[in-house]
Amino acid sequence: MAVRVLGVDPGLTRCGVGLVEGSPGRPCKLVHYEVVRSEPDLDLSLRLLNLDRRLAELVTEFRPESVAVERVFSQHNVRTVMGTAQAGAVAILAAARAGLPVQMYTPSEVKAAVSGNGQADKAQVTAMVTRLLRLEVAPKPADAADALALAICHVWRGGARERISAALRRTR
Amino acid sequence: MAVRVLGVDPGLTRCGVGLVEGSPGRPCKLVHYEVVRSEPDLDLSLRLLNLDRRLAELVTEFRPESVAVERVFSQHNVRTVMGTAQAGAVAILAAARAGLPVQMYTPSEVKAAVSGNGQADKAQVTAMVTRLLRLEVAPKPADAADALALAICHVWRGGARERISAALRRTR
Repeated sequence: MAVRVLGVDPGLTRCGVGLVEGSPGRPCKLVHYEVVRSEPDLDLSLRLLNLDRRLAELVTEFRPESVAVERVFSQHNVRTVMGTAQAGAVAILAAARAGLPVQMYTPSEVKAAVSGNGQADKAQVTAMVTRLLRLEVAPKPADAADALALAICHVWRGGARERISAALRRTR
Repeated sequence: MAVRVLGVDPGLTRCGVGLVEGSPGRPCKLVHYEVVRSEPDLDLSLRLLNLDRRLAELVTEFRPESVAVERVFSQHNVRTVMGTAQAGAVAILAAARAGLPVQMYTPSEVKAAVSGNGQADKAQVTAMVTRLLRLEVAPKPADAADALALAICHVWRGGARERISAALRRTR
């Protein structure tokens, strides 16, 4: 059974958004991708509001069944971490408000899911996303490719979970 | 002219909320305070949703004219910073969604505003808030007192800005 997933690579200045549809073990289909941008000199409340509104529109337009958001960890730059955490909170809240389940994945989990290598670089992730979705042109910028990778990761991982649950039910 | 301010000391497990009414240079009046709590083992999306809903209810019930949120800086514990940043984003977004202006203050600015000392400890801030609002019992826990201090700071600082603008208009 195919599932439609919204992946979000959170960021204040550039927030990657990617929607794919698919089922575990099969190729995913691209539905949509974009980058929600906001100017760094804009008021923080307006930046968060802008992102919140766009995500609500995308949920209404594309009707995903679940949402995958990149889990933010400590990074080099504290300022960047803060913005990422704030944008991530807006994405998680937008999903929760729409009644959608949210799953978080670390960058390594996503990289491993799409490329088999948890240490893959950005170019490798973009190349794999392009290949897995059978696109003629690579999705740009990297934030959009990352969001699509998150969505693909969730389709496949969700599938693994479903198979495990099914296997457990059979053995009981 | 009195203004009603909602102060928010963001946190995932305990989010302090305080409402005061007042005008610059005069004592503020307590309107309401509480702590919005959520269990650490609850799903993050439900924790954020819970906070979002309670803040929306408080805005509807108490009709503040502006919102003051503590500005999060780097702290010792990265995990704590993330939760604080996420809760802060929910508070800022709740205000923006309600069309309310949001102002952020650092802990030192708030401490300096209510106690004259940017390095004041929690006990000192609570004592000053109790005195400034002429309360018979100190607001507890410290998160609630901090939220009230933020609101008081905003009433007074907003006033200072207004006086400066007025002075500038007169000299032009």
